[in-house]
Amino acid sequence: MQNISNYQKAFIAYLQQYAKPKQPENLYNPINYILELGGKRLRPVLTLMTAEIFDANHRDAFDAALSVEIFHNFSLVHDDIMDDAPLRRGQQTVHEKWDINTGILSGDAMLIMAYQLFENYEPKTFQALAKLFSKTALEVCEGQQYDVDFETRDDVTISEYLKMIEYKTAVLVGAAMKMGAIVAKTSEENKESIYHFGRLLGIAFQLQDDYLDAFGDPKTFGKQIGGDIIENKKTYLYLKALEYLDADKKRQLEQLYSVQLEDNKDKIETVKQFFVESGSAKATQNAIEEYTNKAFKILDDLTISEEKKQLLKEFGMGLMTRKV
Amino acid sequence: MQNISNYQKAFIAYLQQYAKPKQPENLYNPINYILELGGKRLRPVLTLMTAEIFDANHRDAFDAALSVEIFHNFSLVHDDIMDDAPLRRGQQTVHEKWDINTGILSGDAMLIMAYQLFENYEPKTFQALAKLFSKTALEVCEGQQYDVDFETRDDVTISEYLKMIEYKTAVLVGAAMKMGAIVAKTSEENKESIYHFGRLLGIAFQLQDDYLDAFGDPKTFGKQIGGDIIENKKTYLYLKALEYLDADKKRQLEQLYSVQLEDNKDKIETVKQFFVESGSAKATQNAIEEYTNKAFKILDDLTISEEKKQLLKEFGMGLMTRKV
Repeated sequence: MQNISNYQKAFIAYLQQYAKPKQPENLYNPINYILELGGKRLRPVLTLMTAEIFDANHRDAFDAALSVEIFHNFSLVHDDIMDDAPLRRGQQTVHEKWDINTGILSGDAMLIMAYQLFENYEPKTFQALAKLFSKTALEVCEGQQYDVDFETRDDVTISEYLKMIEYKTAVLVGAAMKMGAIVAKTSEENKESIYHFGRLLGIAFQLQDDYLDAFGDPKTFGKQIGGDIIENKKTYLYLKALEYLDADKKRQLEQLYSVQLEDNKDKIETVKQFFVESGSAKATQNAIEEYTNKAFKILDDLTISEEKKQLLKEFGMGLMTRKV
Repeated sequence: MQNISNYQKAFIAYLQQYAKPKQPENLYNPINYILELGGKRLRPVLTLMTAEIFDANHRDAFDAALSVEIFHNFSLVHDDIMDDAPLRRGQQTVHEKWDINTGILSGDAMLIMAYQLFENYEPKTFQALAKLFSKTALEVCEGQQYDVDFETRDDVTISEYLKMIEYKTAVLVGAAMKMGAIVAKTSEENKESIYHFGRLLGIAFQLQDDYLDAFGDPKTFGKQIGGDIIENKKTYLYLKALEYLDADKKRQLEQLYSVQLEDNKDKIETVKQFFVESGSAKATQNAIEEYTNKAFKILDDLTISEEKKQLLKEFGMGLMTRKV
């Protein structure tokens, strides 16, 4: 086993070897551009780490890890078009730097390239990886659709919201880990357990993201504080607040979430007060802890050494106590 | 072996069973809409037919055939966004009936669903199908990119054009047939031969499409006569005409292809005259015949009965003498 930053470095070296210029360049340059924009490489690192957790060499998991990273970036390219986002990781998005058609077509090619990366595995492993990948990728699309649908609905329930973030974000974390387990050919039980470990951590991670968006430290949180509030995004914080507030305050909060303002300073402060007063901020912290603990409990079922369990736990704690 | 219209009926019945309402409906309704818009179902029928050519039951090829058809429709949905096309098969395109974001996301889901359809095949067949599918799908993306690139280039060569239509259109015809051969587990030689048969017929088919766009019978040709001329599309007819015309007439033709007019009647007539006078119309007919004959010659290599070869030949002839 190695530490996270070693897996990161090894993965980036592998990625750079892969992202070479190809013809037609108007198709492949945008792909290499987004792949080389950076990011934490969290998902592929999880694939490499999980392979070694189950006694394989992380090198055997490079192609699966790269597939996960390419899929993740494919979804960013297409989501950024749908969200009309000008920036990604502080740089121009693909459709801004080129155009929307380029973003669509390059994204399509990335989805196919993600599947191609499984081809070096023998047929049974190939099929297992591709099946998991397809199931996960389709769930990510469904999650994205639910997210879009929720924008125009005012009756979104907490359980619908949890399903949405599970599909849009968490299943890919679970799948990234399970792919490492598949490459390592561990038992079916271990594969299932590590999938659910990743999935539950993924949900906790997204809830943490919701929380930090409002209450994160502006100095360390990467994005603008209150971004979700400005966009009237129905996060866990918002939905819980609606549940807890009395009718009058609920109406006030809904009123605040029905407008788009030039200056959002007061709106952000008022909404945050609602989140705190209602108990929604605390409930969100509790939910993060609950999902993290659920994930940790699954570790009991894994047939791996206590040291390795400790490593997975530390990784999970690292994610959950992050300020960024 | 059955006749084409029986395969068509069997395929449509299978498709209708597949295209059932699913949640989230804003993702799946557009998919079912485009899948049920109709069309000749040429590619999936080729998959079913080829499976039986190589002694399998066409039912065993339903999932592969459906995959090909879903991929084809995925490419239509995304291409229609890129081309800003309002109509497809006389009906609203997906992004017109819904919106661009729906077209992007539903298309993405279709690409994934196309892969999922291979999952019922055992691992080796699964891998063979998925590998061929990925290679083909990526070539289709590259072909689409070349097509886009050609719009703004004035030095496109005939061989570049042929490569573009091969990638954008012909390889999927070859792959549709090879998938039937893979499901039937015929020899590698037969698989390769039937792929190239389909690929060459696909090129002939696209050249025929170029030809009919200018010289088809308005009563029977499905699309508007002269559509390519109106859009200044650099087809085989146009590129060959540039090659054959003297400097002065070449300049005139290029001049005609640099404008967008309100009334295109005169432009279409003049351009068609250039196509005929220059010998380009005749050269296109020759190229169609040449690719068809190349395809037919490949049939000699197949280890199948003379009757079946005759059937493939008739199918090819049917495609090439079509007026629609």
